[in-house]
Amino acid sequence: MIDPFDDTYFMKRALFEAQTAYEQGEIPVGAVIVVNNTIIARAHNLTERLTDVTAHAEMQAITAAANYLGGKYLHKCTLYVTLEPCQMCAGALYWSQIDRIVYGATDEQRGCKAMGTTLHPKTKIEGGVLAAASTELLKRFFVEKRNLN
Amino acid sequence: MIDPFDDTYFMKRALFEAQTAYEQGEIPVGAVIVVNNTIIARAHNLTERLTDVTAHAEMQAITAAANYLGGKYLHKCTLYVTLEPCQMCAGALYWSQIDRIVYGATDEQRGCKAMGTTLHPKTKIEGGVLAAASTELLKRFFVEKRNLN
Repeated sequence: MIDPFDDTYFMKRALFEAQTAYEQGEIPVGAVIVVNNTIIARAHNLTERLTDVTAHAEMQAITAAANYLGGKYLHKCTLYVTLEPCQMCAGALYWSQIDRIVYGATDEQRGCKAMGTTLHPKTKIEGGVLAAASTELLKRFFVEKRNLN
Repeated sequence: MIDPFDDTYFMKRALFEAQTAYEQGEIPVGAVIVVNNTIIARAHNLTERLTDVTAHAEMQAITAAANYLGGKYLHKCTLYVTLEPCQMCAGALYWSQIDRIVYGATDEQRGCKAMGTTLHPKTKIEGGVLAAASTELLKRFFVEKRNLN
């Protein structure tokens, strides 16, 4: 039987969030957190609207998921995020002890792999899910931004 | 002339915040952000009360300072924090482009130096200011916690 709730399914939901960020003039990154095939948190980058460098999609999703679960730790949860987490977000994910991180596009400059951020030993991480769609949206955003200035 | 507004003065304010965290059963870490000798943000760890691993003193102080300044970047600001920032907080400070970080006690296990977190090239960092007072408060907290369990 084909499982409709695979990584592609949930990454598409994260991409919807990134699209919302894009429409609001935010760097288009979106995230959802899933437990038992249920989305318990969804968020998109809000650094411009909130004038706050800490308002990355992942940070908001971590806070929302913990609030939903009633506990600090995101055991058995998976984060889907359209762009590889940065040091800050990977550092927050370290504290959350999340089970699994799935990201779309790689951030060669400021991603947690390039930066050498330590994840929790319990956490598995993999990238490249719908990476092309994430990269295309990010590129479109930056090209349009450049043309405006 | 003696400057009353030196690093010790502001670290004492961060220690007051840590003391408040201690009294609320939180791991006692406090922070203030200062610009032109004026405290524009003060915060203490609230991870237990908010059930949120992202609620470190520094994260809240960064958000509050940006809100006060009306801009995302903490140029010309100094963060005083009683314990060396972790990966998450150092990652947030990277994005904030803060001028200077002054911390009290070193976190040998999970501090940003041990973890190898990258700070912004503009940011200067130094530690050891009122470190003994910070360590003493943290030790007292953990000894009491252990005796309760």
